[in-house]
Amino acid sequence: MSISISARFAFHLFEPTDLLLQFEAADIPEQEVLSTTTKLAPALHVARVPAHNHIGERIWVRAEGAYAVGYEAEVEINRIAPDLASLAAVDPHALPGEAVEYLFDSRYCQADRMQNFVADRFGDLSGGAQVLAMCDWISDNFHYEPGASNAQTTALDSFAERRGICRDYAHVLIAFARASTIPARYVSCFAPGVDPQDFHAVAEVFLADPSVPEGGAWYLADPTGMADPAKTAKIGIGRDAADVSFLTTFRHSRFEFSEVRVTETK
Amino acid sequence: MSISISARFAFHLFEPTDLLLQFEAADIPEQEVLSTTTKLAPALHVARVPAHNHIGERIWVRAEGAYAVGYEAEVEINRIAPDLASLAAVDPHALPGEAVEYLFDSRYCQADRMQNFVADRFGDLSGGAQVLAMCDWISDNFHYEPGASNAQTTALDSFAERRGICRDYAHVLIAFARASTIPARYVSCFAPGVDPQDFHAVAEVFLADPSVPEGGAWYLADPTGMADPAKTAKIGIGRDAADVSFLTTFRHSRFEFSEVRVTETK
Amino acid sequence: MSISISARFAFHLFEPTDLLLQFEAADIPEQEVLSTTTKLAPALHVARVPAHNHIGERIWVRAEGAYAVGYEAEVEINRIAPDLASLAAVDPHALPGEAVEYLFDSRYCQADRMQNFVADRFGDLSGGAQVLAMCDWISDNFHYEPGASNAQTTALDSFAERRGICRDYAHVLIAFARASTIPARYVSCFAPGVDPQDFHAVAEVFLADPSVPEGGAWYLADPTGMADPAKTAKIGIGRDAADVSFLTTFRHSRFEFSEVRVTETK
Amino acid sequence: MSISISARFAFHLFEPTDLLLQFEAADIPEQEVLSTTTKLAPALHVARVPAHNHIGERIWVRAEGAYAVGYEAEVEINRIAPDLASLAAVDPHALPGEAVEYLFDSRYCQADRMQNFVADRFGDLSGGAQVLAMCDWISDNFHYEPGASNAQTTALDSFAERRGICRDYAHVLIAFARASTIPARYVSCFAPGVDPQDFHAVAEVFLADPSVPEGGAWYLADPTGMADPAKTAKIGIGRDAADVSFLTTFRHSRFEFSEVRVTETK
Repeated sequence: MSISISARFAFHLFEPTDLLLQFEAADIPEQEVLSTTTKLAPALHVARVPAHNHIGERIWVRAEGAYAVGYEAEVEINRIAPDLASLAAVDPHALPGEAVEYLFDSRYCQADRMQNFVADRFGDLSGGAQVLAMCDWISDNFHYEPGASNAQTTALDSFAERRGICRDYAHVLIAFARASTIPARYVSCFAPGVDPQDFHAVAEVFLADPSVPEGGAWYLADPTGMADPAKTAKIGIGRDAADVSFLTTFRHSRFEFSEVRVTETK
Repeated sequence: MSISISARFAFHLFEPTDLLLQFEAADIPEQEVLSTTTKLAPALHVARVPAHNHIGERIWVRAEGAYAVGYEAEVEINRIAPDLASLAAVDPHALPGEAVEYLFDSRYCQADRMQNFVADRFGDLSGGAQVLAMCDWISDNFHYEPGASNAQTTALDSFAERRGICRDYAHVLIAFARASTIPARYVSCFAPGVDPQDFHAVAEVFLADPSVPEGGAWYLADPTGMADPAKTAKIGIGRDAADVSFLTTFRHSRFEFSEVRVTETK
Repeated sequence: MSISISARFAFHLFEPTDLLLQFEAADIPEQEVLSTTTKLAPALHVARVPAHNHIGERIWVRAEGAYAVGYEAEVEINRIAPDLASLAAVDPHALPGEAVEYLFDSRYCQADRMQNFVADRFGDLSGGAQVLAMCDWISDNFHYEPGASNAQTTALDSFAERRGICRDYAHVLIAFARASTIPARYVSCFAPGVDPQDFHAVAEVFLADPSVPEGGAWYLADPTGMADPAKTAKIGIGRDAADVSFLTTFRHSRFEFSEVRVTETK
Repeated sequence: MSISISARFAFHLFEPTDLLLQFEAADIPEQEVLSTTTKLAPALHVARVPAHNHIGERIWVRAEGAYAVGYEAEVEINRIAPDLASLAAVDPHALPGEAVEYLFDSRYCQADRMQNFVADRFGDLSGGAQVLAMCDWISDNFHYEPGASNAQTTALDSFAERRGICRDYAHVLIAFARASTIPARYVSCFAPGVDPQDFHAVAEVFLADPSVPEGGAWYLADPTGMADPAKTAKIGIGRDAADVSFLTTFRHSRFEFSEVRVTETK
């Protein structure tokens, strides 16, 4: 399965400003970047650094005034996407050290506060079947309302308000999974089928890998139901949206627009 | 400089519960663990995993009922603790990839919301001098009030309420530093001079390392003024207190007590 | 129905402090205070003022150091407590002006953020039947956990955490009712059957009064199920717990203890 | 002093919706409404009710689809606006019952959490001089940034972020005053000099009335510095913005625009 990606976005910087960009499909074993073109407006400095867990890259830019970014890529997805329902949980004391940080609370995902609800509602299930039940519950109980959330909105807010966009759906799933001692992280990505077309976000959960005795692996899960793991190109991962925004500015800036198109090519 | 550490704590688990412990001084180049004794109550499972950035270890325990931990150690501190005032900031675009995550917002440290205050109050300074001014401001404006904060209290809360304990002081400094594009992280530690004696927490900031051209390093900073970096034994680090609690339980539990003694031995 | 009330509480004031007390059963048509004894420790000033909507009284005290209060009363409850299920809602545009403020958000009851949930879950009901369904839902989905909430906990917090005490149960019901355009207020009260015995809190909702054409009245509703309206003595009312605490101090103070006993006498 | 007011606003209701409007200058002793014209679009129901403390009126409307409101008025302001610096505080135990509710925390004004800051920063002053110092502090430390706050933003948020609009400035002043045991309420109003022209909001504080022994009165205070009390026409008052929005809808709606013009006429 290959997908073709085209993305453009622009913003305005009122003074010389440091910012981080992370918008390119990551070149990792589960997906091969066949071709890629990145166009950055001129800047005072540009530097690339590896991103979270060495999945993808971040680009440091120092610039001022109007700034625009263009990106085109062709990505072949080789990810194996098993039925989550068949996957067991990994016992907490068997979790590898690098998965442990994805159990802890993060900026937008306060799992500690969801323990009663998660135990009451999903406590009779475990592993992948539990994660699927969480996805279904979110899908059934939430209203997809662009504009209803903002950069301050947390999983706790979304859970009470029962609405949001992909970012908020992913945050709630991450909080639920962590509250059930399943490591969960945030994945920014490109996927065909996302409506309206835009940068997308899903969750990734750490469950048993049936091919490795006592081993575990990360599996994509999208509570919006819009992204098929077999057609999804990861940009990067993090503990939540605070870690993998496509644009993080360290001064006030004005966002102008973004335009994303993702299509299946074979 | 050597310090002698003695710590005990106990809690009750109402059902078989997975929990994480992180309470031992880390064995890392800047501090040498000369002797150590850890006593854990019997458990269903015990497993050690490396902690954040491979600084120290976490212990997975699965247990039920009353549970107690005892720890004794002798640690020699070899850390070089330069005067922060002499250290320059590292340009954001020169930050190594592994420092970048410590610029982002975390559970308790919402740096994005402190940008106006930090720019207005500390904007005429930079680097270590700026961090010292932040420490002084916190020390001057905060009331050290045990019991005034809890596990939900964030840097934003503390900043408004002007009170808290070491955890809260560290969170506010971390949020301030990040708002000024200085990577900052949370350090749980043992230090003589902490009053009342207890597990302690300070911040660590990433600034230029004068001995390495274009390089940077992490430096301890304690806005409570109680811990001397030359006498502080690190337990572990993380983005904030969510990552390095000495006890994280994944079910409801009842904390019984903790008792910590730290003394200089030479 | 008569009830006998005995209450004592004490606290410590570190400096000369103004405080408000509101702990006595109100003398209002629906309940007759047969006998009453209030003992206040000596104070610098004492003054009584009418409380919210002239239901009950508040006592201003200015004092310092240890302070104790004792209260004994016999109250006859004459309240008519119809089956809520039989009561219609009052159309919003027919609400009297003095009920309108109880539709608005207050410190602990952010009804605006519950609209989706309330419409989805309770939207097919109205009036008293809807309020009863809300009470049942809270009772079924919440854990009564003394110590799990504090003076900062809001209805939004409780709704996510699914736990709390009478105060939190009442706040959630109030937020739900207001989100459905039913005026709702907070009632502090004494009631036999409260377990453990303590000051109690319930909600009151404004619904149609079958005996008055186009009229409305306030009706008690207790989502904890512990207080019977026919045996409940109101202390006071307000928009939420911020308005009718039995003790509000305007400086830091240390609460010592409270002890409440309420029994049916005939 | 007379002012001429012209206001228009419009919104869209997706289904039959109950809403409250409060946008007309109140007819009260301190200001005389010389002429007034209110144009409401056709509605399913319209009913007027007295507003908070009988200052002004609220209009209940039930309507659907596009809805527009127009208002023209000429108001003569007779308010006496003494120099706040000359006014003493009223002792808490001398406050009348109806002022007491304005000491309590409300939806957006969490005074309990500001006590340390207020005592440390303003504790050497009292009464009107203290309120003026609070206004100056807000004016000096805040950035007036339209768009930086939203309907969820509280005084605590604004205090940390150091920015907002008139609503947020008023909320912070109200929280400060209450933390110092000075009753404070929210006033929606029209005033010339507001830039950009719009519905405006200020605070009102309860201080000693020099003309009445032991008496008190409400005095306007605007931390934005844009509204002159001698030229301000009150619309209504409440505990905070939750109580006196010019438009409160009890279902989701889409706001279209508002346009306000206020000029001095003599």
